[in-house]
Amino acid sequence: MIVGILGGTGKEGTGLALRLAQAGHSVVIGSRDAERARTRAMELCRASGGNVEGASNREAAERAEIAIVAVPFAGHRALLDELRESFASKIVIDTVVPLDFKAKHPYAPPEEGSAAEQAQALLGSEAAVVAALHQIAAHELASLDHAIEADGLMAGDDARAKEQVAELIRALGVRPVDAGPLRNASILEALTPLLIEINKRHKIKSSGIRITGLSS
Amino acid sequence: MIVGILGGTGKEGTGLALRLAQAGHSVVIGSRDAERARTRAMELCRASGGNVEGASNREAAERAEIAIVAVPFAGHRALLDELRESFASKIVIDTVVPLDFKAKHPYAPPEEGSAAEQAQALLGSEAAVVAALHQIAAHELASLDHAIEADGLMAGDDARAKEQVAELIRALGVRPVDAGPLRNASILEALTPLLIEINKRHKIKSSGIRITGLSS
Repeated sequence: MIVGILGGTGKEGTGLALRLAQAGHSVVIGSRDAERARTRAMELCRASGGNVEGASNREAAERAEIAIVAVPFAGHRALLDELRESFASKIVIDTVVPLDFKAKHPYAPPEEGSAAEQAQALLGSEAAVVAALHQIAAHELASLDHAIEADGLMAGDDARAKEQVAELIRALGVRPVDAGPLRNASILEALTPLLIEINKRHKIKSSGIRITGLSS
Repeated sequence: MIVGILGGTGKEGTGLALRLAQAGHSVVIGSRDAERARTRAMELCRASGGNVEGASNREAAERAEIAIVAVPFAGHRALLDELRESFASKIVIDTVVPLDFKAKHPYAPPEEGSAAEQAQALLGSEAAVVAALHQIAAHELASLDHAIEADGLMAGDDARAKEQVAELIRALGVRPVDAGPLRNASILEALTPLLIEINKRHKIKSSGIRITGLSS
């Protein structure tokens, strides 16, 4: 499976690329600066022992069978708008969290309700958007020999797309948990400022969420 | 410590009363119907082997050293408005979650941002509101011999009040986790529709949230 990671030179994108390449996926990390992505990809190949290539965001989106959006929220709308045709008929995993720690409430979603619902609105029904991977700390992903205790919550309206995303989450060494339709994406996204707060208060780096009471 | 539970004859209130009485706290469960609360209190005394009394919501609020608000959201504003003076200079634990499963998004907070922020706005600075106990399933609380795996997340602006709430959460057999200021209450409240969704999808009764990565 070819996984394209848009914003793939950032911390989260890099951590995801490492783990997915290690698990045997072909990864294309995209960046606004393709040259930077290629340099980073060489480092990630060495670190993972797997297959990582660097490209422009557009090329990464076009080559991807599953695309992961891992850009800062400030660039979210522009990226999806620009690459709409490249995403058509693909599974798009949206990991983006709109944050504003200076506002009254730190979770600051756009009018669509969440970043993922904004993505679905921009891409239309041809793409299947799944909100996921917000709460898996970049820090944890990058420690390849370290088992991740947190769950991978995901929300989306397309059941088959969620099955494929669940497989990808398992490849990261994380248990996937189906958290319902895309309208629940805001709840998943809002967990990120909660975990940032918990990290700060407990002086730790990588708190996560685990769902209790599940049989497996 | 005298704990007053407003809406104490409901499922959540009953579960909390059982566990707190078992742990040695004096509990007063309040209801709009004081007679109903007294009948229920007798049952809870027998089941817990502890001290549970029944009263009107007003009497429960007045006698409480710590008050727990466990009414449906539909009655939240009216209760706080009516009993404002009884809550003055007390710690008020708000467990209430505004839900609307028919709306676009199932978490449906009031304009204050969350039920708990609404409570703080109505009660003013004399009361210390702590948002907590939303995610501990009534079902789990009521099984007295059953260890609860989920964490007790709490948000509030008064550090000393949160310390006392943490003690109360420990008395339930639950690990307290400080999730920051009251502005984070909406994130905690929104976890309830998420867990309802997960319960439905996984055909279980009592999923919960646990924070990973904490040292204790």
